[in-house]
Amino acid sequence: MTSRHLLGGILFTDLYQLTMAQVYLRMGLHDQRAQFDQFFRKYPDYGNHQAGYCITAGLEWLVDWMQTTRVTNEDLDALRSLKGVTGRRLFGDDFLTWLSLQGGFESLTLRAVPEGRVIHIDVPQAVVEGPLAMAQILETALLNHLNYPTLVATKASRVVDAGRGRPVIEFGLRRGPERAANAGARAALVGGAVSTSNVGVAVSLGFAPKGTHAHSLVQVYLAMGRGELEAFRAFAEVYPDDTVLLVDTVDTLESGVPNAITVFEELRARGHEPLGIRLDSGDLAYLAIRSAEMLDKAGFPDTTIVISSGLDELAIWQILRQIEDEAPRYGMDADGVIGRLTYGVGSNLITSQGDAVQDGVYKLVAVHHGGDWVPAIKISETAEKVPNPGRKSVWRVYDERGRATADLMATEDEEVAAGRRLELHHPTRHELRRVLDPGRVSEVEPLLTDILVEGDLVEELPQIHVLQERRQRDLERLDPGVRRLVNPHIYHVSLTPKLWALKKRLIEEALGPNVDPESGGAAGG
Amino acid sequence: MTSRHLLGGILFTDLYQLTMAQVYLRMGLHDQRAQFDQFFRKYPDYGNHQAGYCITAGLEWLVDWMQTTRVTNEDLDALRSLKGVTGRRLFGDDFLTWLSLQGGFESLTLRAVPEGRVIHIDVPQAVVEGPLAMAQILETALLNHLNYPTLVATKASRVVDAGRGRPVIEFGLRRGPERAANAGARAALVGGAVSTSNVGVAVSLGFAPKGTHAHSLVQVYLAMGRGELEAFRAFAEVYPDDTVLLVDTVDTLESGVPNAITVFEELRARGHEPLGIRLDSGDLAYLAIRSAEMLDKAGFPDTTIVISSGLDELAIWQILRQIEDEAPRYGMDADGVIGRLTYGVGSNLITSQGDAVQDGVYKLVAVHHGGDWVPAIKISETAEKVPNPGRKSVWRVYDERGRATADLMATEDEEVAAGRRLELHHPTRHELRRVLDPGRVSEVEPLLTDILVEGDLVEELPQIHVLQERRQRDLERLDPGVRRLVNPHIYHVSLTPKLWALKKRLIEEALGPNVDPESGGAAGG
Repeated sequence: MTSRHLLGGILFTDLYQLTMAQVYLRMGLHDQRAQFDQFFRKYPDYGNHQAGYCITAGLEWLVDWMQTTRVTNEDLDALRSLKGVTGRRLFGDDFLTWLSLQGGFESLTLRAVPEGRVIHIDVPQAVVEGPLAMAQILETALLNHLNYPTLVATKASRVVDAGRGRPVIEFGLRRGPERAANAGARAALVGGAVSTSNVGVAVSLGFAPKGTHAHSLVQVYLAMGRGELEAFRAFAEVYPDDTVLLVDTVDTLESGVPNAITVFEELRARGHEPLGIRLDSGDLAYLAIRSAEMLDKAGFPDTTIVISSGLDELAIWQILRQIEDEAPRYGMDADGVIGRLTYGVGSNLITSQGDAVQDGVYKLVAVHHGGDWVPAIKISETAEKVPNPGRKSVWRVYDERGRATADLMATEDEEVAAGRRLELHHPTRHELRRVLDPGRVSEVEPLLTDILVEGDLVEELPQIHVLQERRQRDLERLDPGVRRLVNPHIYHVSLTPKLWALKKRLIEEALGPNVDPESGGAAGG
Repeated sequence: MTSRHLLGGILFTDLYQLTMAQVYLRMGLHDQRAQFDQFFRKYPDYGNHQAGYCITAGLEWLVDWMQTTRVTNEDLDALRSLKGVTGRRLFGDDFLTWLSLQGGFESLTLRAVPEGRVIHIDVPQAVVEGPLAMAQILETALLNHLNYPTLVATKASRVVDAGRGRPVIEFGLRRGPERAANAGARAALVGGAVSTSNVGVAVSLGFAPKGTHAHSLVQVYLAMGRGELEAFRAFAEVYPDDTVLLVDTVDTLESGVPNAITVFEELRARGHEPLGIRLDSGDLAYLAIRSAEMLDKAGFPDTTIVISSGLDELAIWQILRQIEDEAPRYGMDADGVIGRLTYGVGSNLITSQGDAVQDGVYKLVAVHHGGDWVPAIKISETAEKVPNPGRKSVWRVYDERGRATADLMATEDEEVAAGRRLELHHPTRHELRRVLDPGRVSEVEPLLTDILVEGDLVEELPQIHVLQERRQRDLERLDPGVRRLVNPHIYHVSLTPKLWALKKRLIEEALGPNVDPESGGAAGG
């Protein structure tokens, strides 16, 4: 069997991080102080719909990993065993000794946008400062711990937004990505889901896990010749105050709902109130309306209708529209039907179906050299791929309505504050500038906070409900156009004139003054 | 910090598995023997291309999980703490005592299609038999451990197939789904990748991890005013026999390749041979041709060209076509250029970008009742969603060319063998039958093998290279049309007449004889 330790510790990395670290060590550069920015360059694009913002997630488990990961003898033995093409060892004893003395990531300082916040492209989500070699080794695990959770928190936020305030429960463990389904369930909570069916994640994070029953319960009773009604009765007997019945195993409206109502009446006769039903197949909008009608007539107008099966933000949006259109035809109030829905969202949420890749990158932006921080640049054919260089501060600018109007990156020595004229420069196009007069800016908020200072946690990270509140508050301050599910408005991410000038100068220095910095630098193929 | 134990053990499940298990216990059904089939209902559909087969993966780690997962006091305490809406405990002491006595999954028998094999829709990939309650509790973890790896092994198989025999290296850890990136790297190997950059996975599985260096190495040297050439020299000094240089940090053809050639010449002068270069941006086909030309002229015709960045099966296919078209224009032999390529495939492989959901399900197919196995059915509006009932045998039928022509499911008491006339019935459409005369069948192969018998491993599971050979052999016996990357030919998955008759009868019994079984049963909404 596979060694579990090797899979989760310091070797949870790409080989090249370790080979580069050995180069740095041999060249005497390993302790050179360096800064890396982690950011993403595009919002998730699900094909027929697109995100206009992301929700940051994954930070706590990253920090947990950084603080608990230690270089072990098993790791060192594994590295010692690696050979190059000629059979020579890839890693020398000098490197293994150095790595062993490092022990872990205590030498690194980490700043980040707090979990649960709205974040945008190109803006540093995390910033790592420390000795070059260890900061380099961290890259893979840092990206791994932030990319996927941010993708899922973003998807969850959209699903919750589409659901018009009705609760979303994360149901994806069975089709989620293996062990990462735990991080996915947590990210769904960060993004606004009220709970998850994942028992381990729920209890670990202080949530009540949620669930109903599966078709198999009814199938067992059917196979024994005892029928759906008996299956429902069994469930209600064991959970008289927590009865949610899955009504679509045989036929939803002909069998499932009538049998559920029979059991609900029996429950009530014994002094208990049923919670509701679940619909997991068929035309969920139509069935929700007709089930609500039957439940109302039977005297159960307060029961919940859980819908599940293939849901995502677009499906929910369409189902709600259909209920609005169709409910009156059956004499039902659409808001009443919608107001009793709960969404069980599985595969599409936990896999971020449509766009399963968050393209977060980790780029060297500065090296401490010759007694000073020297900004680093990386040229690219594509202007958008040239990172914003140097040590920066990052600000969110709120307009006179209190709405976020731009994220602004500045050089670290600049002061950015409300009450001043702000000039916002487009990150790649020279001609695009926007000026905000002092009266148009209600607040300027720094986005990055200290998380670890040389390995020590600055303060205990907050509970999930705090992250959920952050998201809620940030969404309220976001332009509705940016929140739009399809073809959202593009949020402004800008540079100060000083940072733009630095970027322009570095590109010119790298390529000579005749190259247009707006082309990104490198010549096309 | 989150309890790691609760996240990976028996509580790595959906709540409803445990609530149903408690119902079974209270109703005296928990020890009733039951059989569940796990299968998937559609091949991955990536939007503009589609899979015509899957490669099964994940079995070994599932078995590992089943054999090592024990019910602990921490698990029991967590379950004891769960409350229903009225504050009453959800799980009684009787259930916790029973669960504790179960200890783990030793009561279950598992059969499966071996890892690395080609598998098709509707055919059981895994079959679980045992006491109803524990077989039910296993559902979530079983699906979780098989769905994602099968998705990635399938994607890997397609990428490898597109690459015309040139090596594929898995590069996805940074953007893979958190901890599941380990299972993803392993699945990529099962699907035919030659190695992975993931150090922990590679060393655990006996592979040499692969990698080059990142842009940051060059950036560090640039920021210190020392340039790309010095960075390359540093790398080559440390790895004189394993030098692969990333040539696109500044400008691939103007700077990167010339600098690499300088360093290669210096290496050779010292008695070492360079391995190659890596291209990670720009027009990879064009740059591969031009780089190959420069390397040839400089006397390095045997160096590898690693290409990476945004690759998947379609991108590789297109790049190879473009090299075929363009290479002659530069006086280069296309096969020569293609013959020195290595593919580094990251995000798109490890996330199965395009379709990140494997829709594997786990369905009750039989219950032991009244001294006999009773087949179970689940009705659905969609005929394709009605599972094939009962305890079955599963066969792969090879035609006179030795090619797989159909997978055939039979009732467990039927004999299926080569040398007999075979009648293959369509799984949902009454009128579709196909008859194979004895001379047209070269082999009939059973697909399921015993993996665990009441918790005990029947035989040690094989190393990855054996799984890779299985895949290779199965692909060779698959019709090229089924392997096609875009719009593949549909492989036949069939029932024997006896199994079809059983399915028809069960649907009629569930719904009355006037319902057309081909509609799947339930009336539309």
